[in-house]
Amino acid sequence: MNMKKIEIEKKLEEIFKDRLLLDTADLVSYGFDASFGQYMPEFVVQVLSTEEVQQVVKLANEYVMPVYARGASTSLSGGALPVKGGIVMDFSQWDDEFEIYPDDLIIKTRPGVRTGRIHELAEKHNLMYPPDPSSSVVCTIGGNLAENAGGPRGIKYGVTKDYVIGLEVVMADGAVIRTGGQTIKNVTGYDLTKLLIGSEGTLGIITEATLRLIPKPIDTKTAMIIFEDLYTSGKSISKILTSGVRPSKMEILDHNALNKVEDYAGLDLPRDAAAILLIEVDGEPDNLIKELNIIKKALKEINVENIEIAESKEAENKLWQVRKLVSPAVVESGYTKISEDATVPLSKIPEMFKKIDEIKKKYDLNIVVFGHAGDGNLHPTINTNMRDEEEVRKTEDAVEEIFNYAIEIGGTLSGEHGIGVMKKAFIKKEMGEDGVRYQQMIKRALDPKNILNPGKIFPEEGEERLVLRNE
Amino acid sequence: MNMKKIEIEKKLEEIFKDRLLLDTADLVSYGFDASFGQYMPEFVVQVLSTEEVQQVVKLANEYVMPVYARGASTSLSGGALPVKGGIVMDFSQWDDEFEIYPDDLIIKTRPGVRTGRIHELAEKHNLMYPPDPSSSVVCTIGGNLAENAGGPRGIKYGVTKDYVIGLEVVMADGAVIRTGGQTIKNVTGYDLTKLLIGSEGTLGIITEATLRLIPKPIDTKTAMIIFEDLYTSGKSISKILTSGVRPSKMEILDHNALNKVEDYAGLDLPRDAAAILLIEVDGEPDNLIKELNIIKKALKEINVENIEIAESKEAENKLWQVRKLVSPAVVESGYTKISEDATVPLSKIPEMFKKIDEIKKKYDLNIVVFGHAGDGNLHPTINTNMRDEEEVRKTEDAVEEIFNYAIEIGGTLSGEHGIGVMKKAFIKKEMGEDGVRYQQMIKRALDPKNILNPGKIFPEEGEERLVLRNE
Repeated sequence: MNMKKIEIEKKLEEIFKDRLLLDTADLVSYGFDASFGQYMPEFVVQVLSTEEVQQVVKLANEYVMPVYARGASTSLSGGALPVKGGIVMDFSQWDDEFEIYPDDLIIKTRPGVRTGRIHELAEKHNLMYPPDPSSSVVCTIGGNLAENAGGPRGIKYGVTKDYVIGLEVVMADGAVIRTGGQTIKNVTGYDLTKLLIGSEGTLGIITEATLRLIPKPIDTKTAMIIFEDLYTSGKSISKILTSGVRPSKMEILDHNALNKVEDYAGLDLPRDAAAILLIEVDGEPDNLIKELNIIKKALKEINVENIEIAESKEAENKLWQVRKLVSPAVVESGYTKISEDATVPLSKIPEMFKKIDEIKKKYDLNIVVFGHAGDGNLHPTINTNMRDEEEVRKTEDAVEEIFNYAIEIGGTLSGEHGIGVMKKAFIKKEMGEDGVRYQQMIKRALDPKNILNPGKIFPEEGEERLVLRNE
Repeated sequence: MNMKKIEIEKKLEEIFKDRLLLDTADLVSYGFDASFGQYMPEFVVQVLSTEEVQQVVKLANEYVMPVYARGASTSLSGGALPVKGGIVMDFSQWDDEFEIYPDDLIIKTRPGVRTGRIHELAEKHNLMYPPDPSSSVVCTIGGNLAENAGGPRGIKYGVTKDYVIGLEVVMADGAVIRTGGQTIKNVTGYDLTKLLIGSEGTLGIITEATLRLIPKPIDTKTAMIIFEDLYTSGKSISKILTSGVRPSKMEILDHNALNKVEDYAGLDLPRDAAAILLIEVDGEPDNLIKELNIIKKALKEINVENIEIAESKEAENKLWQVRKLVSPAVVESGYTKISEDATVPLSKIPEMFKKIDEIKKKYDLNIVVFGHAGDGNLHPTINTNMRDEEEVRKTEDAVEEIFNYAIEIGGTLSGEHGIGVMKKAFIKKEMGEDGVRYQQMIKRALDPKNILNPGKIFPEEGEERLVLRNE
């Protein structure tokens, strides 16, 4: 053990006592997340206050040691992976500090609080926190802030960034700053709040967030639309969105996804359909069936008539169960699930479906497609046998083709999962050399020693493609 | 004329021919906006393409000369004022370049296009661009982007920033970069889009924006609530926002504002009221009266019962006319109107009203208050005789007290007008030394020579308070 490490260990021990973890078993368990790859940190500390975070960052700054914030490790892009070793700050134990102000429609929360807890707190006051990533029961709000998490309500209510109005942040030199405030409108100074949300822990460590809440819609109603071809499903999305009705959710499952769910759970789904679209509308109860009828009428104009409205809450819950079961249904034992989230302009959804189908056939891979149709955010998901070198290579090629096509048709590499380690090789393709150069200027200005979550989100020398296996 | 100026003039002439303006009369007319203060640029050029903007910025970078983007000059904070001389780029002639993609729910626009034109274009396709500053008939979208403009629909639909998904920007070294893209969800890299929106032309010059549109609500309905005391009006705002209904507009006028409008236009308003609240709901027609009834029922619980629902479109238009007439009504001939936009947490609106009333009495000033109640964004507006030194001093003191109190109760200096030259002396009070230091790191990283809209948005040595007269 070198001198630097001994000194850091001594100082961390003074601050954290038994909340400093050094056992190999502990270090290993902090070295992976819901993406893939395994890295080894040198220290893990369980932080419980802004002051502790500040002390760790000051140490990291003094000794030029990497430092990573980590919540529940549900990241699909490797956002929290300690790829350069160093100190992992585990926020998950600091999980019960929040204050809700129902009259101001805001909640102040520490990053370790679970997202699901925030939903419950808001609902107690007849309010809603709309962002709802699939992992909301287990994930922490801190990870949602770092990655700018989305979820199915994005189409009507936006994503995490749209609900963060203020932050407390520990910056790379250990300074604690406050950005934004407690008001919905705020144009004082540069918007560091929105710069930090989605910056994946590379510009500062968030220690508190002020989230705005909205009135909880009184009721919801859901319909399922069944399509015989993919092209029409794509046209239907634009048709619905220009009908005057704003759906609160609009999720699509392709033929493969819905058959996987049917195999898994036997829910009487239309196995022959090319795709199904699940639509939820929300608001005043009497109005919901009217809104679904407006959608029906609009779809009739393009000859889409196979629409089933869920007549009861049970039927509605069953439909949303279908969507929730996609992820478990597509996991095959012994295989690694690669979840992508390339996002395309709404009118390009049919082309994207077709392209993914071509890629699936070309590489003979197990790809299903589902996702947030209303905002063009698809989740092509591949099961890969990581022990089969040939298959890994094909998967890498297929993912690269998906990325390239998404960019070609005006889309983006990532709608809600983040760049992390997964997609950094492709960032220049989307943003251009100058775009990346200006991004890196900001990184260098705010974190000149590159201690905050290093190894992301820009490619290093030679990192030119997706690599699934890092041996 | 020095050599540098001669060289720049020669180069600008080559590029712009008769679109380079040098006459004193022209230069003077580009030296003011809707705030106050008069400055003299050295050159004005009327730009018509990204390439021209790029050429000007490259020249400015080479010769280290200030450069300012300017639209319709409706800024209330001095955002476009050429306070350090240099080159003004007039975007208002580049006013007809846009492409609308109704199936993608987006519009691509150049900064010189009027905001009102964008509203019209969207509505043709049954879509809506929600941000709607009072000046939308004349102002350009470029100014809205630079200042992150708001308007009455902020409460339900957010502000300019919430609708910008991609930008083309000329950076300080003349590089043209693209940020974001054409999709609603996008987490690839740092969010330069949202950093640039509201940065008041100090970090880059926007040359194209991709705006997202939403389905246009089918109908609207409006009610007026009359209050006998200010405290209850504040309580009512939270009560309404937790009733389950989401108003699309919620505007307040205090006793003074509504009496000014009544004096001006004679609309039969309740002159004795302490305040009135105008509420609009939008959506499916049959539902609107139901939503207003839910609001009525909620307000009854706190004994607010004086509610008038506009029964016809004429009655509805008349109510909104009241709001629109506030600004013209409060202008007194020979006086300068100082429009503030301090914004406070929702529950603090009653306190803010009381404080402004105290300040009005203390300084014996002509202050009316109105604004976007639903997001805490008030517009205390003072008429001042700029020739009366004593009154100017009192106004400066009063505005300073308003700023300080807004910050004290958790609010912000500016909800939607921007910092510009008006509020820069106060920015440290809100953000702290470290907050401003990190903001300035970004400015220095992206514009190391300080050529982009210099003199904003940070105070220089000795700029410690509001100064209305800069002689």
